[in-house]
Amino acid sequence: MPLVRIDLRQGTTAEYRKALGDGVHRAMLEAFAIPPEDHFQVITEHSASGLIYDPQYLGVHRTDRVVFVQITMSFGRKPQQKRKLFQRMAEILAEAPGLAPEDLLINLVETSWENWSFGKGQAQYMDS
Amino acid sequence: MPLVRIDLRQGTTAEYRKALGDGVHRAMLEAFAIPPEDHFQVITEHSASGLIYDPQYLGVHRTDRVVFVQITMSFGRKPQQKRKLFQRMAEILAEAPGLAPEDLLINLVETSWENWSFGKGQAQYMDS
Amino acid sequence: MPLVRIDLRQGTTAEYRKALGDGVHRAMLEAFAIPPEDHFQVITEHSASGLIYDPQYLGVHRTDRVVFVQITMSFGRKPQQKRKLFQRMAEILAEAPGLAPEDLLINLVETSWENWSFGKGQAQYMDS
Repeated sequence: MPLVRIDLRQGTTAEYRKALGDGVHRAMLEAFAIPPEDHFQVITEHSASGLIYDPQYLGVHRTDRVVFVQITMSFGRKPQQKRKLFQRMAEILAEAPGLAPEDLLINLVETSWENWSFGKGQAQYMDS
Repeated sequence: MPLVRIDLRQGTTAEYRKALGDGVHRAMLEAFAIPPEDHFQVITEHSASGLIYDPQYLGVHRTDRVVFVQITMSFGRKPQQKRKLFQRMAEILAEAPGLAPEDLLINLVETSWENWSFGKGQAQYMDS
Repeated sequence: MPLVRIDLRQGTTAEYRKALGDGVHRAMLEAFAIPPEDHFQVITEHSASGLIYDPQYLGVHRTDRVVFVQITMSFGRKPQQKRKLFQRMAEILAEAPGLAPEDLLINLVETSWENWSFGKGQAQYMDS
């Protein structure tokens, strides 16, 4: 159910970006208990002029390695689950691919359960 | 009013992507009765490492031809209209450009009517 | 707190796109009174086949210079603030980089205050 958009600067390897996507997914498994197969992501690299960030908003020191993770997901997660997601994602990505926790920006967009079709033109969550 | 983001793998022709965009739009005309001129889309191709999908989530068999369609639209459509959108989009895209219904993932994000400006700095839906 | 996605056709300079991003940000400062450091944007160029727009929807005459601005932000802005955002953004971008007000399409997506992490795995808005 989550559809994840990951945006970062050019200059990383495909392996780096795979570790990034895998880490984001693992954090969602741990914090939200989604099924492991529920894995859909768009990862996009940008030139320096295409990814704009502030290097000190809220006292967090960001660098050009900054990563934006925007997750569209269904309503229903509690604040504590969201807090856990943020914490675990920062911890997991610090291990691999080695992203500084300061360089991780996360945003959640919540939508209704009926707003998804996972193929065959069916509304799988409406019928279950 | 809908703003549509379509993401797919590299390797298709501009004609294929035009048929994709046109088919997504036609499904919205049929299911939501939007005006034909209400047509705004961003279609982006990705490398293999940039579009991640699970090949069997919910028992749907997806391939590298998978297409993600994310539609930001105003609130107010009923579940039956959304169901019709999913069904018709799968049917229409199967005809042209020949997309397997299993390879179509759709997500709707709903926003307020007042949250749109279609030019001239005006809030066209707030004033009508 | 806003995460801004700006989409436009290929063929502009990095300076043009910087002026675009700066103008969008300035309009948010004026209309929403966000902190100046709250500046996070993804600016993406597209080929002609990747950015689809209608040239006359709602009587607004758009050209290939059309720009889509999609802002994900927290709930709480009043209609008059949104109206001001639309007006000021059109005015500011007409000054620099010289975008015709007809070529500016804006969409707001609202999300909860608890749905943001600005680094360190913290939920900064949940705790303040």
